[in-house]
Amino acid sequence: MGSQIGSEGQGRGHLTPAEFRRAGQAVVDWVAGYLERLESFPVLSRSQPGEVRSKLPAIPPEAPEPLERLLADLDEIVLPGITHWQSPSFFGYFPANASPAAILGEIVSAGLGVQGMMWQTSPACTEVETHLLDWLVDLLGLPQGFKSSAAGGGVIQDTASSATLCAVLAARERASAWQTNERGVDRRFVAYASSQAHSSVEKALAVAGIGRENLRPVEVDRHYALRPDALERAIQRDRELGATPFFACATVGTTSSTAIDPVPAIGAICRREGLWLHVDAALAGNAAICPEHRALNDGVELADSYCFNPHKWLLTNFDCDCFFVADRAALIRTLSVLPEYLRNKATESGAVFDYRDWHVPLGRRFRALKLWFVLRLYGIENLRRYIRAHVALAREFAGWVTADPDFELCAAVPLNLVCFRHKGQDAFNEHLLAALNASGELFLTHTKLGGRFVLRLAIGGTWTERRHVERAWETIRRTARQL
Amino acid sequence: MGSQIGSEGQGRGHLTPAEFRRAGQAVVDWVAGYLERLESFPVLSRSQPGEVRSKLPAIPPEAPEPLERLLADLDEIVLPGITHWQSPSFFGYFPANASPAAILGEIVSAGLGVQGMMWQTSPACTEVETHLLDWLVDLLGLPQGFKSSAAGGGVIQDTASSATLCAVLAARERASAWQTNERGVDRRFVAYASSQAHSSVEKALAVAGIGRENLRPVEVDRHYALRPDALERAIQRDRELGATPFFACATVGTTSSTAIDPVPAIGAICRREGLWLHVDAALAGNAAICPEHRALNDGVELADSYCFNPHKWLLTNFDCDCFFVADRAALIRTLSVLPEYLRNKATESGAVFDYRDWHVPLGRRFRALKLWFVLRLYGIENLRRYIRAHVALAREFAGWVTADPDFELCAAVPLNLVCFRHKGQDAFNEHLLAALNASGELFLTHTKLGGRFVLRLAIGGTWTERRHVERAWETIRRTARQL
Repeated sequence: MGSQIGSEGQGRGHLTPAEFRRAGQAVVDWVAGYLERLESFPVLSRSQPGEVRSKLPAIPPEAPEPLERLLADLDEIVLPGITHWQSPSFFGYFPANASPAAILGEIVSAGLGVQGMMWQTSPACTEVETHLLDWLVDLLGLPQGFKSSAAGGGVIQDTASSATLCAVLAARERASAWQTNERGVDRRFVAYASSQAHSSVEKALAVAGIGRENLRPVEVDRHYALRPDALERAIQRDRELGATPFFACATVGTTSSTAIDPVPAIGAICRREGLWLHVDAALAGNAAICPEHRALNDGVELADSYCFNPHKWLLTNFDCDCFFVADRAALIRTLSVLPEYLRNKATESGAVFDYRDWHVPLGRRFRALKLWFVLRLYGIENLRRYIRAHVALAREFAGWVTADPDFELCAAVPLNLVCFRHKGQDAFNEHLLAALNASGELFLTHTKLGGRFVLRLAIGGTWTERRHVERAWETIRRTARQL
Repeated sequence: MGSQIGSEGQGRGHLTPAEFRRAGQAVVDWVAGYLERLESFPVLSRSQPGEVRSKLPAIPPEAPEPLERLLADLDEIVLPGITHWQSPSFFGYFPANASPAAILGEIVSAGLGVQGMMWQTSPACTEVETHLLDWLVDLLGLPQGFKSSAAGGGVIQDTASSATLCAVLAARERASAWQTNERGVDRRFVAYASSQAHSSVEKALAVAGIGRENLRPVEVDRHYALRPDALERAIQRDRELGATPFFACATVGTTSSTAIDPVPAIGAICRREGLWLHVDAALAGNAAICPEHRALNDGVELADSYCFNPHKWLLTNFDCDCFFVADRAALIRTLSVLPEYLRNKATESGAVFDYRDWHVPLGRRFRALKLWFVLRLYGIENLRRYIRAHVALAREFAGWVTADPDFELCAAVPLNLVCFRHKGQDAFNEHLLAALNASGELFLTHTKLGGRFVLRLAIGGTWTERRHVERAWETIRRTARQL
């Protein structure tokens, strides 16, 4: 550290900047080597419970260890315990796709070591984030009201679960004339989401003191999308019972099958009934970067809040959930704190955003950097190509399934998720899934649709190409024949 | 990517591993250069509201931009908007100290791109974390009951705010025989913390649907520590009013002045009254790595939960809050979800931890890596030296304040925070603070103690040495004389 590391710094074991340069190169090399070897690992870790821990020493070292020993342990202890989310043959859940560009942004973020709880504690951390989220409104064709130049604004949350919680909280406050934060829950609030909605809605209602049993799982149609008539009836029934309907979550791209709730109809009901509408487009929202998928946003202009996750399908390392609100004052009023030790002129001027008041945690990292690196190092044209390639592959895969007499498609394929099954019993499909994942050649997960066990193949990996999808299908057919 | 990036990958704009190697080197170089230049920047950003945004283009680029342009923008747009938390002359708030070792761990975490919501989704992500948190129990001399081999266990949360929220939720559930998650808040729960407790307690009660007005701010003694007699009286009063006392937060090292609540006495009351005791030792807990500071843990064996932040004072990049519980079953029961699409054999075996059930978000990064890198690349001996150096410097600074007829100490200095003021009026101290921070030479923040405006100097920076503290004192004295 030039003048900075004198004998004092050295005496505390810091790497000097020169040492950090060399060590950083070694670690970057290790990561590059990992990416080169991605296809050589079994996708699902074969580690047994306790196996990783059994290789770790009982106590940490008293004296410093050399970096080489850590890197060796990464290979020998950590990698066998990794389920390779970045493998091109990882088709489970929804993807969490990292990219070289985002990793570079993460390195800068770690290097700056900024804690951006308030504008003052690093104006760039707040302003780059606000600006990028305004960019995304235009890029994805979202309502202009979500922009910071209007009454709305965007903020990066860690996950869609946290975004849903913040939406529930703001809705709860608005519905109680801002009294619940002060006095606690004093009535029966009721929330609505389809039976296919993400588990985070239920969790948010539990956390918020509203209670899981006050979530009405609304019926879905044969495409697994929420039925607006059922929503309307449920709201009326609850009103008759004296409850306070306050919140609805519409899902654009459900976790089980990427079903798309009819947001325009749901939005009209919510406006009429005075419910806060949150739209959870965690995976699917990313596709709206392509003009041909803009219909995904239909009705979002009626929403009070909206989120999607670039960490799912826009090459930005986890964690990066983009959460937008139409009325930022409602969100801030719900989540603000201002103890004496955080007072400062910028906050009091009202001219800045203090993002600590847009979510539950006080502190925050400079997460906008990785998104900035992705948008600029890829350029929008490549991001569109990327989404389109996955959608085309998913449709192709769906065609193969349909053409095979032993398999059947179990849901529409609007985007990059194919839900399918062997025509045998559920038990056969369960065995098939277990055998496929045990092979190490690919990783799939499952769901239940219409009461049946269904395989899910989500195509969204950074490195996934046509050959990986082809090989997956060959492996699936071969394994089914052998079972 | 060798065979992995064929024409398809290239066509989507991914950097190949070879390109990533070069780009990663350039970014590591940039970070090393930043560390070398740390002392050359004004500590508090001089950016005006909107200034950073005014330098950003209105729309993102359609085509990829070269990395060089991004790095140039980091220098020209981002750095002027950074408040340099890593500057050796950053003495504000509590530190958020990054280190070269932790940055290396962050690079690996970003490179692996693991999403560790469940054991199965990367056993190493869960097991390294569990193992390290067990290590910390021994390293810090915490109760053995917090270990995963006992009934407890540790988990990394983003911030102490989130840890406090989880503690409040588990307490709420236990106090309601696990009914609130299901049915919502149906009684008046009351919580207790000293008037000096962190704002996150109030926020957690608001979020949890309990209400801020049901937090009793308990009186403190002249050392700003909670008075157990006042706590006991408050509980009795609330019981007489028919409320349900359920939770107390003791603070070991308050944000304003590092006051240390008497945890043994508070713990005895909580045991007797059946309250969940959470101990928030966000900053101070780190010092217990030194045997001479182990008294900080007195009484923690009576706590139901405990947290401290290695991202504050143990060289581990933000975000890294270590949260321990004595009864993990209570925490898991409070926060668990198990939708069909997350079911798997490992979870059902009961032999593993699924950390998604230990906090609010579903997804999670592999944050244990940075902590692992810190513990191993520094070794415990250096971490102890590091803490001791800061404590010694703080005591030395306190001595200078005491010896100066124009200044006075405003609170005891048990660790690394000095609360002091010029003997002039509050307004003078406010001007002094503004002038110091405007100088760019150092950054301090303030609080109020006993109704008076007090300057806070927290010594915890990775690169802070004696000469920075000496210069800070000289600057403070000179500026006060000149005002």
